Amino acid sequence: MRVVVPYRVADPKTRLASLCSPAEREALSRAMLADVLDAVRAVGEAPTVLATEAFDPPGDTETPVRIDDRPLSPAVNAVLAERAGPDSPVAVVMADLALATPGALSALFDADGPVVFAPGRGGGTNAFVSRHPDFRTDYHGASYRDHRRICEDLGVTPTTVDSYRLGTDVDAPADLVEVLLHATADGRTRDFLADRFAVTTGDGRVGVERRE
Amino acid sequence: MRVVVPYRVADPKTRLASLCSPAEREALSRAMLADVLDAVRAVGEAPTVLATEAFDPPGDTETPVRIDDRPLSPAVNAVLAERAGPDSPVAVVMADLALATPGALSALFDADGPVVFAPGRGGGTNAFVSRHPDFRTDYHGASYRDHRRICEDLGVTPTTVDSYRLGTDVDAPADLVEVLLHATADGRTRDFLADRFAVTTGDGRVGVERRE
Repeated sequence: MRVVVPYRVADPKTRLASLCSPAEREALSRAMLADVLDAVRAVGEAPTVLATEAFDPPGDTETPVRIDDRPLSPAVNAVLAERAGPDSPVAVVMADLALATPGALSALFDADGPVVFAPGRGGGTNAFVSRHPDFRTDYHGASYRDHRRICEDLGVTPTTVDSYRLGTDVDAPADLVEVLLHATADGRTRDFLADRFAVTTGDGRVGVERRE
Repeated sequence: MRVVVPYRVADPKTRLASLCSPAEREALSRAMLADVLDAVRAVGEAPTVLATEAFDPPGDTETPVRIDDRPLSPAVNAVLAERAGPDSPVAVVMADLALATPGALSALFDADGPVVFAPGRGGGTNAFVSRHPDFRTDYHGASYRDHRRICEDLGVTPTTVDSYRLGTDVDAPADLVEVLLHATADGRTRDFLADRFAVTTGDGRVGVERRE
């Protein structure tokens, strides 16, 4: 299976700007990418990073990087157009799935069907597998709903895997709680965040605050 | 397995007050309870509602109701103290898991282990199974973390199931998007909400707005 991990190199994770400096956002984003790449490798697949510009992938400099400076949908669709088919599945896994484990990815990769989705919170499509030559993405808006419509137009019945881990992408401050509580203890992302932030439960609402 | 569904009868879902009238919040809350009870029954279990006061359970008046006007933790702990053990598992499933399906509940009920958790967003414990006589709950704050600590103190290694459906409880306006996109098409909750709200993607952010 070809596994592609899209990654925006410059100014990542802007929705975390209220909590993290630009350097921290970059380091966090690289840590999440490294953890996702590790999880993909742990199930025996060799990931490719689909990056918006040249950069050194974290951890392992042998990860192939394909550069495409277009927005996410056309960049992913170019890979699908070249590669996806019944005998050549393509998986697309977002780089900010900091809770992804080999087990959760296996469930996605092994699920049967021409198109298999792992939906994300807020209508996102956090990961998918396509074995159909004509499936294309449209990541704007509620992409999960749009992707299901695209399948319907193709006469394809999509499969959906039920995974909290794959359904949790890290974009907003509230998502940091998820990493601190659920990310694997030996991951770079959790290490990075646990050094800097703690979970708070002050008024009954759960959040994070910077450590002293 | 004894399956208990805690339910607050009066003034439910206050975090939805900006979107829904008190009557709508009550109707929505009853619809979610009915859907959860249906999903529990669909896997062959007979649920009991653990209610804060007397009321008529929706849909099926034969559902047993146990009344306990104490806060959630002591009310649940009383059931655990009476019932839970290696040969008498107790499952506690929150009434606002509007995405719960029989498949997702089966994965929880069938998972091995003395204590099995289905964590929820924001540190919650949306559902669990206990087969240990001494496990007790503490739902305040980041309960998933606290419940893991309680297990640790008992020398118990908990199991966690990975389910987006069980991980999604419906509390806040953003959660309505999840119901509209992911709840089963024949559920009461989705029917109720789809009649009143639509998913919006105006500025790239996904939300809901009331239908005209």
